[in-house]
Amino acid sequence: MTYGLFSKFPAQPGKGDDLADFLLEAAELLERDPACIQYVVSGSDEPDVVWVFEVWTDQAAHDASSEPEDIRTLIQRAMPLIAGTPEQTQLVIHGGKGLPS
Amino acid sequence: MTYGLFSKFPAQPGKGDDLADFLLEAAELLERDPACIQYVVSGSDEPDVVWVFEVWTDQAAHDASSEPEDIRTLIQRAMPLIAGTPEQTQLVIHGGKGLPS
Repeated sequence: MTYGLFSKFPAQPGKGDDLADFLLEAAELLERDPACIQYVVSGSDEPDVVWVFEVWTDQAAHDASSEPEDIRTLIQRAMPLIAGTPEQTQLVIHGGKGLPS
Repeated sequence: MTYGLFSKFPAQPGKGDDLADFLLEAAELLERDPACIQYVVSGSDEPDVVWVFEVWTDQAAHDASSEPEDIRTLIQRAMPLIAGTPEQTQLVIHGGKGLPS
């Protein structure tokens, strides 16, 4: 079952762009992971908030994705920029446009 | 500026799957629209709620997308299944994995 996640990351005041850069770096690292179908980083008119829409082949692949050393290091570096627990919506992807067929 | 939208559609009781089918039909119609980069339909553990993640070349393209006759007809047919105003988060897409380069 294709697994999705929509996350709202609160950033420390004035650190929204820096946090977005880290999450874009994570997206680049995930280019190598075929189980990661999408990792889309966005902003909004809400300052110091970064949104990430993810699609994975399944939840286990997502859960395992933070294990590699370089990703763990990146998460550690980003932690000081995050201002609280992200709000997350877990999704069951039905389909649509823009997903690999 | 690449425009994004994340929407939470409340469905009438027991009509979540039917609403998802309509939104998947909309995604198929949008296959012809090059300005629509993504239109991903999802469910969650919340019954009778359908989520749509959209990415468009810009907001004007999104706003114009409901004008074609067949899409307007589809929206009319889906309206009775929708149980209230969708909650929507407008996004500025920074980038990431899964978007066309």
